[in-house]
Amino acid sequence: MGDGAVESGRVAEGVVDLLGALAYGELSAFDRLAEDARTAPTLAGRADLSAMAAAEIGHYTLIERYLADQGHVLEDVMDPFVAGFDAFHTSTAPKSWHESLVKAYVGDGLAADFYREVAQWLDQPTKELVLAVLADTGHSAFAEREVRAACEVDPKIKDRLTLWGRRLLGEALTQAQYVVAERDPLAELIVRGSGDLAGIAALFRRLQQSHTRRMTVLGLG
Amino acid sequence: MGDGAVESGRVAEGVVDLLGALAYGELSAFDRLAEDARTAPTLAGRADLSAMAAAEIGHYTLIERYLADQGHVLEDVMDPFVAGFDAFHTSTAPKSWHESLVKAYVGDGLAADFYREVAQWLDQPTKELVLAVLADTGHSAFAEREVRAACEVDPKIKDRLTLWGRRLLGEALTQAQYVVAERDPLAELIVRGSGDLAGIAALFRRLQQSHTRRMTVLGLG
Repeated sequence: MGDGAVESGRVAEGVVDLLGALAYGELSAFDRLAEDARTAPTLAGRADLSAMAAAEIGHYTLIERYLADQGHVLEDVMDPFVAGFDAFHTSTAPKSWHESLVKAYVGDGLAADFYREVAQWLDQPTKELVLAVLADTGHSAFAEREVRAACEVDPKIKDRLTLWGRRLLGEALTQAQYVVAERDPLAELIVRGSGDLAGIAALFRRLQQSHTRRMTVLGLG
Repeated sequence: MGDGAVESGRVAEGVVDLLGALAYGELSAFDRLAEDARTAPTLAGRADLSAMAAAEIGHYTLIERYLADQGHVLEDVMDPFVAGFDAFHTSTAPKSWHESLVKAYVGDGLAADFYREVAQWLDQPTKELVLAVLADTGHSAFAEREVRAACEVDPKIKDRLTLWGRRLLGEALTQAQYVVAERDPLAELIVRGSGDLAGIAALFRRLQQSHTRRMTVLGLG
């Protein structure tokens, strides 16, 4: 077996890692959104956040089928990522309904930006899968509406949620770096895809810029 | 306006009630299944129960759209049923993973049997909606598998889960009767549909018989 085959094996391993992280991200987001939905002040809000949670499972199922077709058991593939995502969620447990909405909105957006960038480095079928999983499910409009309305009523809410949004970004980037650092094949996929360390820095800057734009849409920052 | 029109107005009100109960049943089942999924001993089990929860939201959305087309706001329509369903769930909070599985399986089955009977009394479009909402989503096979396996390993688990299944049936029928008794249009729909009180008794007997068959499939009873 030549170097090329070994390399493509490593790359393939990194892609499987990436899908595992994406899938566990969906499963853990489902869990947290479903829990947060319970704190909704209205039945309509509860149904909206529940629908956002349910959409995560739709995405999860797409990844599960794709990996199963390639002989991978999703639970095994997700396993290395459980601790990192759980740590993120534990350190960012929302303390109010509006914090839940901002987290759902910002978290979904950040994840989508990251995976959309990475998708460009993948083989065509995996790229299509990732883009399908990220396809906007249109569940975020209610979060924008509710957060903007709350900020207009009370500037203190706006200040608090602005800080909250910054903290979410910080925690997400920190945990993402831990996760990648611990998984060699995934780290290799990202280093190769971005070109070099400067490329990774540029990727992080783009994620931060999109985050700032998203906060503005919410009426924050 | 003659008696006929008044009557058909009452019937229509009962149908809206029925859809409200069905929808809140889905939303509350989503909430409880998502919570129970967290206690799963494996990632696979957690994903399976989460998928069952997500399917409830798919059904919920169908009902929401149908009622919206007729000018009804689903939250208002569901409101009278929140207390009854919540009381059912509070009185039947599972204390173990297997209790969660039995509840998910038995609850889904009972609800499906009930609404499938009632669907026969409805106008064609509503009947089709209800049957679409009840369409088997194929998420129950894992519950059968896991519960049967647990019972084969330990007869004590089997005994305990058999009692649990009986309690679920009792609580469900009790709460259902409270709910119907408090909503005149819904009560009228059910009395007319079943023909008379003897018809209602026969309906309840059929629900109990299906429940017994379902328990047997789980290896219980």
